[in-house]
Amino acid sequence: MHLERKQIAGWQRKDLLGLRDLTAEEIELILDTAVPMKDIMRREIKKVPTLRGRSVVNLFYEPSTRTRMSFELAAKYLSADSVNISVSTSSVVKGESLKDTARTIEAMGADVIVIRHSAAGAPKLLAQTVDCHVINAGDGFHEHPTQALLDMFTIREKKGRLKGLKVAIVGDIYHSRVARSNIWGLTKMGAEVRLAGPVTLMPPEVEKMGVKVFYQVEEALEGVDVVMALRIQRERLKEGRFPTWREYARLYGINARRLQKAKPDALVMHPGPVNQGIEITPDVAEGTQSVIQEQVTNGVAVRMALLYLLMGGGTTSEAVN
Amino acid sequence: MHLERKQIAGWQRKDLLGLRDLTAEEIELILDTAVPMKDIMRREIKKVPTLRGRSVVNLFYEPSTRTRMSFELAAKYLSADSVNISVSTSSVVKGESLKDTARTIEAMGADVIVIRHSAAGAPKLLAQTVDCHVINAGDGFHEHPTQALLDMFTIREKKGRLKGLKVAIVGDIYHSRVARSNIWGLTKMGAEVRLAGPVTLMPPEVEKMGVKVFYQVEEALEGVDVVMALRIQRERLKEGRFPTWREYARLYGINARRLQKAKPDALVMHPGPVNQGIEITPDVAEGTQSVIQEQVTNGVAVRMALLYLLMGGGTTSEAVN
Amino acid sequence: MHLERKQIAGWQRKDLLGLRDLTAEEIELILDTAVPMKDIMRREIKKVPTLRGRSVVNLFYEPSTRTRMSFELAAKYLSADSVNISVSTSSVVKGESLKDTARTIEAMGADVIVIRHSAAGAPKLLAQTVDCHVINAGDGFHEHPTQALLDMFTIREKKGRLKGLKVAIVGDIYHSRVARSNIWGLTKMGAEVRLAGPVTLMPPEVEKMGVKVFYQVEEALEGVDVVMALRIQRERLKEGRFPTWREYARLYGINARRLQKAKPDALVMHPGPVNQGIEITPDVAEGTQSVIQEQVTNGVAVRMALLYLLMGGGTTSEAVN
Repeated sequence: MHLERKQIAGWQRKDLLGLRDLTAEEIELILDTAVPMKDIMRREIKKVPTLRGRSVVNLFYEPSTRTRMSFELAAKYLSADSVNISVSTSSVVKGESLKDTARTIEAMGADVIVIRHSAAGAPKLLAQTVDCHVINAGDGFHEHPTQALLDMFTIREKKGRLKGLKVAIVGDIYHSRVARSNIWGLTKMGAEVRLAGPVTLMPPEVEKMGVKVFYQVEEALEGVDVVMALRIQRERLKEGRFPTWREYARLYGINARRLQKAKPDALVMHPGPVNQGIEITPDVAEGTQSVIQEQVTNGVAVRMALLYLLMGGGTTSEAVN
Repeated sequence: MHLERKQIAGWQRKDLLGLRDLTAEEIELILDTAVPMKDIMRREIKKVPTLRGRSVVNLFYEPSTRTRMSFELAAKYLSADSVNISVSTSSVVKGESLKDTARTIEAMGADVIVIRHSAAGAPKLLAQTVDCHVINAGDGFHEHPTQALLDMFTIREKKGRLKGLKVAIVGDIYHSRVARSNIWGLTKMGAEVRLAGPVTLMPPEVEKMGVKVFYQVEEALEGVDVVMALRIQRERLKEGRFPTWREYARLYGINARRLQKAKPDALVMHPGPVNQGIEITPDVAEGTQSVIQEQVTNGVAVRMALLYLLMGGGTTSEAVN
Repeated sequence: MHLERKQIAGWQRKDLLGLRDLTAEEIELILDTAVPMKDIMRREIKKVPTLRGRSVVNLFYEPSTRTRMSFELAAKYLSADSVNISVSTSSVVKGESLKDTARTIEAMGADVIVIRHSAAGAPKLLAQTVDCHVINAGDGFHEHPTQALLDMFTIREKKGRLKGLKVAIVGDIYHSRVARSNIWGLTKMGAEVRLAGPVTLMPPEVEKMGVKVFYQVEEALEGVDVVMALRIQRERLKEGRFPTWREYARLYGINARRLQKAKPDALVMHPGPVNQGIEITPDVAEGTQSVIQEQVTNGVAVRMALLYLLMGGGTTSEAVN
């Protein structure tokens, strides 16, 4: 299997910080590149030597199993070396600054730094500090571009396109970097994005993001092609607030009855892990319309594509074999 | 060096959950396969490409250096990729369920999940949830099959056989998954198993396990070929209980005098790490009859064999070279 | 690129425990070997198969990102397998002794154990316990030989030599294993070492180490070729003591004015991470004379050289290609 030169002709960026700054062509290039990557994952021997001798450092300032593991495996399937740094237990103890940490990692020969941080903008600061590539693996409430890319890859794979589709994103929009990245990406690709959630969790900025806002989830789901539920943190729904944890499930949880408002073949998505019975009822999360597990697989493929485009694509242009 | 097709003909199982369910033939196949694996470990370049492009995820819900490292090195010596997840620090934070975690790991392309969990039955639940292979690396007080396999490998290597040997297992039988797996495995292979320990730490179920129970350690050791001391957790022997920590050492600790009850060439074994002076006196633990370090080496070889049988053996049948 | 046999002819040691015991020739051999290693790091594909099938275990009893990552990448660039053990979270829970841990790691097939420990002498104990190679990655206030080797490599690379150079080490000498290793190494290589720092942080032993001691930093810097600032731990400068944290910066911090006392082309060095504005002012740390980032890169090269000399050099003598 080969990646043709034309497929990779468009990639010029040093970093992937968010989808807001990407063009539709760049997003499409990433999604196109992820297709052969997913094929590699399906092989019995799922490893190609493409990025041998390159190194990826996963620098995580927030705990994460899924995203860290997804990047780690993506690197390994491409034969890159991978090193993990989890920064509650290490140099933060010594009070080292983000910039110093980044420069140290670069000085050791890292080709890519994958960063997750609770502060919005941390990946950008990093990208300005170092010459090596930076991938944002989630920064505060700002962006989580690889999640949105895997979501778009999944939709495109199942529906054949993104343009013209209606996608409802349901839940705690306010605190969701996943929602923000999906809004930027999906609207750019020509999809119609609808948001639904409690008014207390709807940020004012959405007015300017080219989306439609609903406070009744049933209205938002009317005729959509995709229902994307967001993960809600229990601590966001404190006692005495509206809604509470249980009220949230009753008012916004995706159940079979609500799902009937959407198109019959609408996809049910969730970034995981699902709080079953809260954001989605178990029958729907496990149902035939759910693509939640497929999203996880696609996450690895999309991250392989990004590592390839950032490190290999521009200069070598060749066989992924 | 080659593994002949006949050697691997018998392996049909998806998972290794415990020794209770295995046949004697299956156990023998694993032990036979571990022989060439140990040879690989003795080479200057101890790495073969056999499992290149396969991935092993070590999912540990209990802290462990030894077992995790043993599986990690076993994977690496066979050129498989290896990813570690230690679940106190990661997604348990987010309240993700065991099933969800397992499905996520599988969706990312894992070929084998190695799981350690404080709950008996967790590996079985996992094995029923995912299509990829599952290896039990210790679940509650239930089983720790790879430990028992390495113990049996060690005995067989030193004594040439298992059938007809007398093996005394000494210590806290009640809380020991190591004891349970050894009882299932050793009796199945035709060894005579004797248990010795405080009556308060002897579970009622042993009555039905085809073993002999002793409360005087000297009687249990009489004429045995193998003395296997178990690790005892200090917190099991609380003040006010009988025995206390020191009383345990006095009553059940393996010392030179007690060892004389066994055959002159009896092996002294322990799963490690030894509480020196408690379960075994230092002179015996370091003595000529002790095979404790050899057990550690054999643990890697046995785990290599399992990874090979689960992932490679059935389909490729070929050279470990 | 080849490493000629003559380059490695001199290496006979099993371990690297400290610079105090090395000869000047041995130090020179390590520094010479690090030169081609640094070349490997500069390649697009920075990986050679030299140590394929060898395994390095990083056993860290103190938290560390930098040193652990440096050794991990050094191993990977040479294609060795690398396993990390961080011992607050693992077997110390079970009360396993250092000796037992070391023997277990060896029994699993490790070729090199890299150890960091808060107790001076822990690496030596380890080296006496196991047959595999041991590298000291920092033990208490005793030695941190790989840090001093990378410091000397950096100086030699920039200045062309070590002999006859004047090097001022400034800061908390008392608690610094970095200072001690540099003193042993630099004096052995014929450099003049000057120490400067608060009298309360100057250990009496320096009298016998062949160095010059200053309590006014300006005097120490007069005409030197290298200014090496040490990291100071905030907890060493408690309230009520002299100096306090701020007084330290005022009295011993390296700033542009003080740096003018040194030669115009003097190097500014620091083991990192810098407490900016305390040990060094930001303008100096980021200035043209600073080689702090270069030190980090050289750290990987020096550790590659050590892994190569310990594992590969003596027996294979050949191409690093």
